Amino acid sequence: MNKLYFEDLRVGQRFVSPPHTVDEAQIRTFACEFDPQPFHLDPDAARQTLFGGLAASGWHTAALTMKLLVQAAPIAGGILGSGGELAWPQPTRPGDVLHVEAEITGVIPSRSRPDRGSALMRIETRNHRDEILQTFDVRIVVPVRPA
Amino acid sequence: MNKLYFEDLRVGQRFVSPPHTVDEAQIRTFACEFDPQPFHLDPDAARQTLFGGLAASGWHTAALTMKLLVQAAPIAGGILGSGGELAWPQPTRPGDVLHVEAEITGVIPSRSRPDRGSALMRIETRNHRDEILQTFDVRIVVPVRPA
Repeated sequence: MNKLYFEDLRVGQRFVSPPHTVDEAQIRTFACEFDPQPFHLDPDAARQTLFGGLAASGWHTAALTMKLLVQAAPIAGGILGSGGELAWPQPTRPGDVLHVEAEITGVIPSRSRPDRGSALMRIETRNHRDEILQTFDVRIVVPVRPA
Repeated sequence: MNKLYFEDLRVGQRFVSPPHTVDEAQIRTFACEFDPQPFHLDPDAARQTLFGGLAASGWHTAALTMKLLVQAAPIAGGILGSGGELAWPQPTRPGDVLHVEAEITGVIPSRSRPDRGSALMRIETRNHRDEILQTFDVRIVVPVRPA
């Protein structure tokens, strides 16, 4: 894929990732290391919680989203975000097939650094039923094309 | 630790986690699975990037923050966030010793559900030099004490 520099980005430009299937083993492995709470670890215990069944850690959904975004968006210099607004409208469940749809929502030249600019990106993570599992509105740094 | 229900939470209440030391192997293992970009994988390649050296994926910092928060904040029913504003002012580096400081910044009774309320929490992730690596302002769901 040709790498995209700041000059190549346009508002409305979209990137769609390949799929990733989540299973119970992945959910439990991630949770065991990073988010060891019953609703992410134990299907029986999870039934008694607000989730009503085993659900992936939101940070697992976020990490998988990054993996898929790296495959989808060939930004020159890599995808490098400084933060943004994150939401999990619904949990990721065992068997969900995730994909990511990202859209450029803003392009902002730098006033102080002629070698780079910023882009705003809305990143949606959806499952195979097209339910939105995560949204992330992020600002990324993008280099301008070398002279 | 006694579990904290909605009635037990107060604005200004604080939680401080134990430490977690991050090393190059952890950074590369996480990045390999979830964020395979040169600045998270290869110290030599990272030197040529905006990071100027190997840096952890922001999602790795976020996942470690969750691990530490679970150890720090004994919320009844677990820590269950619906989203919030996330920022990475500085990258996590090999050798950084992380800890988490969280503070309740709001308590919001539910108008429709008498069995739960919401709390706002500011979660800061700091290293051993007290540099802030991540902030996350999140809304969590907290059950009221059973009758």
